Amino acid sequence: MGVDIVQPGFEWDRSSHVQLDFEKTDLLDRERIEKIILQFHPNYILHLASYSSVAFSWANPVKSFLNNTNIFLNVLEAVHSVNSGIRILSIGSSEEYGDMAGGDEIFCEDDALHPISPYAVARVSQEMLSKVYAKGYGLDIVMTRSFNHIGPGQKETFVIASFAKRLVEMKKSGATSPKLMTGDISVIRDFVDVRDVVRAYDGLFKKGRRGEIYNICGGAGNSLAEIIQKMASILEMKVFTEIDEKLIRPSDNKVIIGSNEKIRRDIGWAPEIPLKQSLEDVIHFWNQRGMTHS
Amino acid sequence: MGVDIVQPGFEWDRSSHVQLDFEKTDLLDRERIEKIILQFHPNYILHLASYSSVAFSWANPVKSFLNNTNIFLNVLEAVHSVNSGIRILSIGSSEEYGDMAGGDEIFCEDDALHPISPYAVARVSQEMLSKVYAKGYGLDIVMTRSFNHIGPGQKETFVIASFAKRLVEMKKSGATSPKLMTGDISVIRDFVDVRDVVRAYDGLFKKGRRGEIYNICGGAGNSLAEIIQKMASILEMKVFTEIDEKLIRPSDNKVIIGSNEKIRRDIGWAPEIPLKQSLEDVIHFWNQRGMTHS
Repeated sequence: MGVDIVQPGFEWDRSSHVQLDFEKTDLLDRERIEKIILQFHPNYILHLASYSSVAFSWANPVKSFLNNTNIFLNVLEAVHSVNSGIRILSIGSSEEYGDMAGGDEIFCEDDALHPISPYAVARVSQEMLSKVYAKGYGLDIVMTRSFNHIGPGQKETFVIASFAKRLVEMKKSGATSPKLMTGDISVIRDFVDVRDVVRAYDGLFKKGRRGEIYNICGGAGNSLAEIIQKMASILEMKVFTEIDEKLIRPSDNKVIIGSNEKIRRDIGWAPEIPLKQSLEDVIHFWNQRGMTHS
Repeated sequence: MGVDIVQPGFEWDRSSHVQLDFEKTDLLDRERIEKIILQFHPNYILHLASYSSVAFSWANPVKSFLNNTNIFLNVLEAVHSVNSGIRILSIGSSEEYGDMAGGDEIFCEDDALHPISPYAVARVSQEMLSKVYAKGYGLDIVMTRSFNHIGPGQKETFVIASFAKRLVEMKKSGATSPKLMTGDISVIRDFVDVRDVVRAYDGLFKKGRRGEIYNICGGAGNSLAEIIQKMASILEMKVFTEIDEKLIRPSDNKVIIGSNEKIRRDIGWAPEIPLKQSLEDVIHFWNQRGMTHS
């Protein structure tokens, strides 16, 4: 039995009619993981857990580390001891690249990593452990560096969802000169639609090369300021922004843009949903959701 | 009050008449660490804890990771919350360099890291966390990559001490064709005497540059086979070696030799105890200790 895909950070779309068996467990409990693996006999493990927020990792570094790196080590140990041919997809992050001196580079998988947040360190550690287990024990592991997700259903703890929700609220409230409080919106990120990401994971299970790392990204950058204006334009509204110092992080990367050449070449994946479509769908999601659920 | 130095992996030399206050604690207990720091008001924290064995990390990866990376993160968090000007010396390992394609390189601090054991990953993670806290919160952290330690008092869980102890036992037992069971003794390591290492730590507290990483090494390589023959020669005995497959690790680095240019330049440290002296002192230690204590 394969394991189906539920993206963390996104709501589960119950209208999709996909049948899933869920088993909620503490991934710090290694024995329990081993039992679940023996019971499910999966062909694939998609390890998306657990805290994927950079901001959360600054406030809760120990929790973020335990529930990213340590839980993943438990999964590796469990798979190693069960000794089956399970393919593991280890999900990493574009945050791993971190701070580049120049800043105008497109990140490739072979580039040096300079993580600058506890979250980014946890993800680099996870990737290094993947390589150790792939090389030392021959485990079948494929790794990703997934770039910034965007799409309908994303929780408002993530920046674009948070902006979208508040813009929709402002529009509905009919505010005359709406002001959006933000962190540093000059940062540039490479956004990729969650539905494209899921297709990439599926493709990597089937065709990804064992022991390899793949960027999953759009290949282009947009500043958060640009994204805000694009969403305001979809909503046919004008919006002003103001920086809330409390939202500024101790360190942040100015520019993170990736190359998707490797995954295109190896499995034929390419992003299909353009940014404009993603943003329209995000706005539609928050419009549909209404303010009563917020 | 400063914190004095007791090297893990080495016995404490009680004849040295240095006064130490000990407080035994679980470094996974963050609140306790904070209390201890507030109580001791240290100028320096030398973080040597805890499991420094590569072999142990293969057998107990989760424990090794928790008790290297996670405990260090607790120390960082405690120092950050106490918000004093404590200088932390974060002790890393030459194992961080890991697997080099070529293999004949002398490792410098700026080289890319390719850790190939759980222990090495834990140490790279510790170093990355150091950088995050130095950059993000301005913590005063100096980092080392300490190469293979050698010297009297080292515990026999470490390879040279283990060889020395067994060679001394063989010599005393008068075995006619003594055979030493080993792992892969073709591997080449850069050995540095623990007494030189301690001097380096002292110097880095006083003169090391904040946020920098320093190799602490001899700058030359010897295979384990050569070390065994040098010790046999000190003992005036002939010894044969045989590989025990159980001692072969899932992955191992063939050659690890470091450059000590940076620490020479920045703090004027250089190794003073030649390898021959170290080995004589190691043999003397095990001779003195006798077989009754083993």
